Amino acid sequence: MTLTGVTSKAIRKGDPEPPLASGKFRIYNMRFCPWAERAMIYVAAKGIEAEVINLNVTDKPEWFYSKHYQGKAPAIEHDGKIVIESGFIPEYLDDAFPESRILPTDPFEKVQQKLLAERLTMVAHAVPQLFAVMRDRNLKNEKQEKVFEVLQQAENLLVHDFYAGSAPGYPDYLTFPFFEKIWWSASLDDVVDLPVHGFPGSEKFPKLTSWFERILNSDVVQSVTQPIEFGAEFMNAYATHGTLNYDLGL
Amino acid sequence: MTLTGVTSKAIRKGDPEPPLASGKFRIYNMRFCPWAERAMIYVAAKGIEAEVINLNVTDKPEWFYSKHYQGKAPAIEHDGKIVIESGFIPEYLDDAFPESRILPTDPFEKVQQKLLAERLTMVAHAVPQLFAVMRDRNLKNEKQEKVFEVLQQAENLLVHDFYAGSAPGYPDYLTFPFFEKIWWSASLDDVVDLPVHGFPGSEKFPKLTSWFERILNSDVVQSVTQPIEFGAEFMNAYATHGTLNYDLGL
Repeated sequence: MTLTGVTSKAIRKGDPEPPLASGKFRIYNMRFCPWAERAMIYVAAKGIEAEVINLNVTDKPEWFYSKHYQGKAPAIEHDGKIVIESGFIPEYLDDAFPESRILPTDPFEKVQQKLLAERLTMVAHAVPQLFAVMRDRNLKNEKQEKVFEVLQQAENLLVHDFYAGSAPGYPDYLTFPFFEKIWWSASLDDVVDLPVHGFPGSEKFPKLTSWFERILNSDVVQSVTQPIEFGAEFMNAYATHGTLNYDLGL
Repeated sequence: MTLTGVTSKAIRKGDPEPPLASGKFRIYNMRFCPWAERAMIYVAAKGIEAEVINLNVTDKPEWFYSKHYQGKAPAIEHDGKIVIESGFIPEYLDDAFPESRILPTDPFEKVQQKLLAERLTMVAHAVPQLFAVMRDRNLKNEKQEKVFEVLQQAENLLVHDFYAGSAPGYPDYLTFPFFEKIWWSASLDDVVDLPVHGFPGSEKFPKLTSWFERILNSDVVQSVTQPIEFGAEFMNAYATHGTLNYDLGL
């Protein structure tokens, strides 16, 4: 376990900036945010010793805008330098910590993995379909059909044990958080007809079901993830514009 | 001049695949496409000897789908390997041809340039506003206001002579094609109130105006660009769903 503070309470408006020791590595996180989870997983997969600062992104601490011009999670901070955006942080981490490189060094293999991760952002775009169902169950059939289509495309793109090949890599880590959010949704009543156990279902999605089980139960993901019951509750509150409890389960 | 075929006629459905000599570098282009132009500029800036194949992307040659699963330009081909997507091709080229690297080697400086290029994609998103005006001049005031806002933000983000610093680099090259498309639009009657000479206007956008002139007149851009009169005509036909003449001006 290289990450400390994974289950720390969310810092909010009015809270002071926690002092950062020189040379220390910090990651600003939001426990239920899939974009932030990408960075968390990558940091964990690389074995970087990092301090996690959880943020209340509804009432953000004022000082956080000096770190990120939009005040968003994730952001990483190292010796006064800030890197933002979940689409860029992973490759930055590979460049800055090459001894634990996850992307291939071969330029062609590297770009293939980046292109695959980009194609898989369709999974991220499927999540708002489920938010719509959380607001109105009448939309379930229409919206879940789109989610099934995305899962089928993701199934077709998975040709080895992992998207990156025989071991999990860049496209697996960047995409997992969005599959996880669909899985969380499946635990809510009548949102999407997908199994919670054996997600997303070995009959229609045999490769994806094995892949999801392997990634979900990996030490890397287990070290950063949140329990499904709190994840689902948070997502539902977010979708229905309810009050967000950033400290759910703590 | 390292590029051959910049003004070659567009290959279309039914045309055979031109044979590619072993070890030769090829770029599939569409002469008026800003995304393709990003790759063209990067190849030219790096001094890579390349053969340009212009495509008719309305009636694409069937064999091109074996190169790009969506049949889009740009794509680069080298010794049987294909790399697609204008957002990934530049960094791939820097990885594959490190002797002419344009992105910084320092991981932090590199990611700053990538983040800046990403923020500047707002310029790309401004172009469809102008397409809307080409279809309906009544929308001019509303739509050009949005374009002016984007130009103002781009002006504010330009703190040195170039986005990359004292010399043009990654964010400059990836963004220029979209500024150029706004410039092309300015040459059409009553689409947007911006000057064609001294674009986008040194009174409101002094830094951007100097920048645009320097980039536009650089050898790199001059070696790949199209004359404004044909560019503007093509854009207008595209916006108004007219017949597209891929060989305009040839």
